Amino acid sequence: MLTEVIPLGTGSAMPTRGRHFSSFALRRGGSLLLFDCGEGTQFGLLEAGLKNTRIEAVFITHFHGDHLYGLVGLLSTLGLLKRRESLTIVGPRGLQDLVNLMPGLAAERLTFSIHFVALDEDMGRMAVYETDAFTVEARPLAHSIFAAGYRFAEKARPGNLDVEAARVLGVTDYQQYRQLKSGQPVTTAGGRLVRPEEVVIPAPPGSSFAYVTDTRPCENGRLLAHGVDVLYHEATFTQGDRQRALETKHATAHEAATIARDAGAARLLIGHFSARYQTSAPLLEEARAVFENTEAAEELKPYLLRIPVGFEEKKGEGGGARGDPR
Amino acid sequence: MLTEVIPLGTGSAMPTRGRHFSSFALRRGGSLLLFDCGEGTQFGLLEAGLKNTRIEAVFITHFHGDHLYGLVGLLSTLGLLKRRESLTIVGPRGLQDLVNLMPGLAAERLTFSIHFVALDEDMGRMAVYETDAFTVEARPLAHSIFAAGYRFAEKARPGNLDVEAARVLGVTDYQQYRQLKSGQPVTTAGGRLVRPEEVVIPAPPGSSFAYVTDTRPCENGRLLAHGVDVLYHEATFTQGDRQRALETKHATAHEAATIARDAGAARLLIGHFSARYQTSAPLLEEARAVFENTEAAEELKPYLLRIPVGFEEKKGEGGGARGDPR
Repeated sequence: MLTEVIPLGTGSAMPTRGRHFSSFALRRGGSLLLFDCGEGTQFGLLEAGLKNTRIEAVFITHFHGDHLYGLVGLLSTLGLLKRRESLTIVGPRGLQDLVNLMPGLAAERLTFSIHFVALDEDMGRMAVYETDAFTVEARPLAHSIFAAGYRFAEKARPGNLDVEAARVLGVTDYQQYRQLKSGQPVTTAGGRLVRPEEVVIPAPPGSSFAYVTDTRPCENGRLLAHGVDVLYHEATFTQGDRQRALETKHATAHEAATIARDAGAARLLIGHFSARYQTSAPLLEEARAVFENTEAAEELKPYLLRIPVGFEEKKGEGGGARGDPR
Repeated sequence: MLTEVIPLGTGSAMPTRGRHFSSFALRRGGSLLLFDCGEGTQFGLLEAGLKNTRIEAVFITHFHGDHLYGLVGLLSTLGLLKRRESLTIVGPRGLQDLVNLMPGLAAERLTFSIHFVALDEDMGRMAVYETDAFTVEARPLAHSIFAAGYRFAEKARPGNLDVEAARVLGVTDYQQYRQLKSGQPVTTAGGRLVRPEEVVIPAPPGSSFAYVTDTRPCENGRLLAHGVDVLYHEATFTQGDRQRALETKHATAHEAATIARDAGAARLLIGHFSARYQTSAPLLEEARAVFENTEAAEELKPYLLRIPVGFEEKKGEGGGARGDPR
């Protein structure tokens, strides 16, 4: 199944005309996950043609407004749409109180229930969301306040049976095929023990995505990004402004790229650029010097986690495609 | 001095691609007032080229998210900009607690102080903001929850002295000119009592604007709109959907126009249209049948309260000029 991430907002705390507040959508089949929900995220969903009714879970990284202030509006809209399905919201402890305090959002006024998952600084590695097909885990990052990073990973599918090889070894029974495929050894009619690894072709691991913002470069960021297909890592500053990165607990483009390289990520998207940079060029150049397969995340452009052979990825129309109006 | 209102968001509670959440900016010289602050208002300010640092006061009508949820983001941004000037925020009682509860917005974290003016249902007519040049008053409206409407009015300037007429009556002294102009009678050297109304040409009354949303048509709406240059009145539904207007405590376009006519407003802007209407045409037609000088408020189009002779008002580029991206 194709899975893609769509940046809805790639700016930092200061609003600019080209970049919106933090949010990434992840689409997998009919399901939608949302990472962060800065002010205006629901407009981004509209502009991207993503149905907000499809959102299953929202993952908030931290309590800075540019990652958070669009959540109440989104919930309010889902209420107006008379959503019935429960919604999962993952984020730092306190989010539940905050939502319940907002006028119009008290639990008894919404048409749907919210399942809150509260994160704490000492949580370590935590599985925060799971379906039959994928998991999302969280780890604490290293920001000025408690922030969590997230890793989405599809579960490995069962491998395909090499039917010819199995037959050669004497497996002819359909029931035994299924047992082997599900990882269990079987004994053939001829008395031969056949182990799965002899006849099952391992499926490629599921696709994965890490969302690492806001943070200094850190071990947990690297662990979240380990071997992912796509890593989104904040790169608020260039090395020339590294002092500001240290003061405000953000990463430089060089540092983000170093994390991507050390984690063995396949592809790096950077964003959350400080409003001081007129274009992404200096940040991109700096990151590519360390990790070639880097792009500046472009709002509303879908990024496939795995690009099928022969599939042409849509070309973006240049930075700030979203709502730069006149 | 030219005063204009700029609609930043003219939609209702359900977000659509063409219309944003409620907000109107009023610009007078270097000053900016904001009426309502729905989610995304700070982007609207950016798109309109209005400096958010110039905002002196924000007037919130009621605690429905589409009029309110952009306030915390705006305050957060003003904090990042290291604003120093105090900001006035007028709105229903409880707004202060709400702002202080938002992560990142506690009073001690902002760089500027906020002067809150709390409104209550039984407030009657209340002067909520005043400068040397203008006043803003509030009155309760008739919505599903407590909502306030606002009226901006420039103060009348002193009239001009008819110097020739004054001279004929024997006034020759500069000091006496000033007294007459400020409204006091004088006695001439010849012993003649001269009253101001004999020699002062009254200045035209200052320009005025009323912001009446969300509400059923009501007496207070009419009083706020009395003789204003521009009335913005919500018109969520057409008469055909009047039952919905009654249920949800909104006005129809016909009702909004009736208020404008009965109040003697010069010009009516309607908005807050329900998302059920694809275009503003049926609402506009309905309103114009009652009050000819009606327009559907267009986002980002500046509307002068008084159009100077020979001044051509900018033509809009069609509805939904703001941020309808692709």
